[in-house]
Amino acid sequence: MDTLIDGFKRFRSRFFEEHRRLFEALASRGQTPKVLLIGCCDSRVDPAIIFDAQPGEMFVLRNVANLVPPYAPDAGHHGTSAAVEFAIRGLDVEHVVVLGHARCGGVRALIEGNGETDNTDFIQGWMHIARSARDRALALTLSAGQPIDAARRMCEQETVAISLANLMTFPWVRERVEQGRLMLHGWFFDLESGELFRLDPITNTFQSV
Amino acid sequence: MDTLIDGFKRFRSRFFEEHRRLFEALASRGQTPKVLLIGCCDSRVDPAIIFDAQPGEMFVLRNVANLVPPYAPDAGHHGTSAAVEFAIRGLDVEHVVVLGHARCGGVRALIEGNGETDNTDFIQGWMHIARSARDRALALTLSAGQPIDAARRMCEQETVAISLANLMTFPWVRERVEQGRLMLHGWFFDLESGELFRLDPITNTFQSV
Amino acid sequence: MDTLIDGFKRFRSRFFEEHRRLFEALASRGQTPKVLLIGCCDSRVDPAIIFDAQPGEMFVLRNVANLVPPYAPDAGHHGTSAAVEFAIRGLDVEHVVVLGHARCGGVRALIEGNGETDNTDFIQGWMHIARSARDRALALTLSAGQPIDAARRMCEQETVAISLANLMTFPWVRERVEQGRLMLHGWFFDLESGELFRLDPITNTFQSV
Amino acid sequence: MDTLIDGFKRFRSRFFEEHRRLFEALASRGQTPKVLLIGCCDSRVDPAIIFDAQPGEMFVLRNVANLVPPYAPDAGHHGTSAAVEFAIRGLDVEHVVVLGHARCGGVRALIEGNGETDNTDFIQGWMHIARSARDRALALTLSAGQPIDAARRMCEQETVAISLANLMTFPWVRERVEQGRLMLHGWFFDLESGELFRLDPITNTFQSV
Repeated sequence: MDTLIDGFKRFRSRFFEEHRRLFEALASRGQTPKVLLIGCCDSRVDPAIIFDAQPGEMFVLRNVANLVPPYAPDAGHHGTSAAVEFAIRGLDVEHVVVLGHARCGGVRALIEGNGETDNTDFIQGWMHIARSARDRALALTLSAGQPIDAARRMCEQETVAISLANLMTFPWVRERVEQGRLMLHGWFFDLESGELFRLDPITNTFQSV
Repeated sequence: MDTLIDGFKRFRSRFFEEHRRLFEALASRGQTPKVLLIGCCDSRVDPAIIFDAQPGEMFVLRNVANLVPPYAPDAGHHGTSAAVEFAIRGLDVEHVVVLGHARCGGVRALIEGNGETDNTDFIQGWMHIARSARDRALALTLSAGQPIDAARRMCEQETVAISLANLMTFPWVRERVEQGRLMLHGWFFDLESGELFRLDPITNTFQSV
Repeated sequence: MDTLIDGFKRFRSRFFEEHRRLFEALASRGQTPKVLLIGCCDSRVDPAIIFDAQPGEMFVLRNVANLVPPYAPDAGHHGTSAAVEFAIRGLDVEHVVVLGHARCGGVRALIEGNGETDNTDFIQGWMHIARSARDRALALTLSAGQPIDAARRMCEQETVAISLANLMTFPWVRERVEQGRLMLHGWFFDLESGELFRLDPITNTFQSV
Repeated sequence: MDTLIDGFKRFRSRFFEEHRRLFEALASRGQTPKVLLIGCCDSRVDPAIIFDAQPGEMFVLRNVANLVPPYAPDAGHHGTSAAVEFAIRGLDVEHVVVLGHARCGGVRALIEGNGETDNTDFIQGWMHIARSARDRALALTLSAGQPIDAARRMCEQETVAISLANLMTFPWVRERVEQGRLMLHGWFFDLESGELFRLDPITNTFQSV
């Protein structure tokens, strides 16, 4: 915990002092981010670091494997859907970025279904959102005699497409997209090479930015 | 979106180049964060900025109002609980920090129940996790003739305590806490003053760090 | 039983004789207390003694651990909710005082979950109302290496706040509080030191009166 | 509220100072009352006043109309049954006194079924425990052309008998009574005359003490 406290002290004495006016303005006027970024909890892919972002710039939702479940308005506690609704209906963001990444532990659990995440209370149920990504990846790679690593990479990228597809099941997302008021983007970060890819709407493939 | 792309280019040419070895090591060895940080999606309170954190340091879960629901293992898609499970059972983190903050829009929706979040599909259902924080804050402040801002501040801080209490309903959290293998911490960031507070286990109040 | 009969004889020959007119007036005109006091059954914390109260002054509800359950209007026998309703809707009291106390056996049963109250028919189910107080207290004190006594004390005080929050779930309580016709108060009596504390609406902590 | 605070100050400076050792002993050794007293919340019939009782003497449960529901161990929040269980199984009291009283508002609501308590959320459901007392009283008094006041008085006394009968539906009450380890008593206080009556086990009538 000392690391965190030390980090806070550095932030407090440098960044906060340099941006005091920004924080005061953000506190009094409220936030008006233009972007909802949906990323993974993974400690290695922090959106603020990867996009060198300033406070107030992105509304950031982070869960395991950057997944969005399909629209299901019922009495349950839907944390991800609530955050999506807050950003889109409450803050009127203009862009949603789903940011996938290489070496995702959630995807590994989904593909391998073993080790630390077997017989879980919640992880397997949550990753079930991406089961079609796993099945597609395994169908293609196993048929081609590819190693499991190829399936993993394909699955990591497909989770991004699944979240985009599920976003369109929310009526107020679809409406805004159809009206041209909201744009959905699929991105993928390779933490080893430091490359950023985006899901190209013409080729349906991830292209380096 | 250009802002994000520009930010990524800065990250790529500076931070990534300076930390290339760290990223390579994190990619090949996997992540081993010691801390699960549960924060809010709010664009003004980014944990990586506030704690000047390095890649690999914190597993970061962000949802509206930094809430943890009570343990409820069923067939639903429990994104927050899955992330908690991944961090604690999968990564064996030693600390959980729940980070609340001032001027939380989720808490404002909960307290005022009007405007942008009336008749929501998911926001009110999600914030229902913190209803006892709202009721406690209103009971005390209204009875004392305090303004609604006092209720909001108290409620923002109480959501942190609710998440800590709900974490204890997860059997594998409680077990680790009782064994001294896991510590739970309640923190609160005041974005206007830049102060960080922690929920003191002796006085049960938030004390400036 | 002789002790009780002897006590009644003392009451009859002294107190009743001295207050005969008061009793007659209270009998003919009915009761008009301004305060509903919700206390514990504990034999050591009698509200009439602690507040040196006169007949007619307080409508007194006593149950284990001074708990109010959340509003749940159904066909069940809700003794506590019925008493709250009688005082507020029937007698139009202006104040509700929830009086917690140190060394509460109900809280001890909740925290320790052993001994006399294991496998109870009703006690554990009743104390379940305060489970979040227990979880909060344990989360904080265990993480800080505090002894179980610290958790007990914190939990005893938190039960008061839970009852206040639950009172606000009754629509006719909340309405009256919002209209300024009813005030809710959280108090705590330390029977060892004889001190009385109140839950301060500004600091959200118990302060000595 | 000033009345209560003033009363506490009198208690603190006189009674507590005079009984400091008693409170210290009760705090350190715990309570060992021999009596569970089940009384009404009514502000005019305070058991500690009527029996000139000392701290530690009686475990006091107070609800509307001093009722005990029948034994029904389920998942509900049973406040009265929990208090009865705590006293009998936890504290091993030797006597249970059910104390009824004249001019009971709960009984009036039951008999008249009008005014302030019509269409209640909880009061009528709670008083339903005593419906057979009402029916018996009305059957007898109406048949004899008696005024409604006679029905009320009879019903007030019958509620005491109903609580005693319901206590015997608790297996661990019945067992202790059969073994001679626990005695049940029905008492009735007339606040106008200051008289105390007890339900005589031979004549089945209330006799002045």
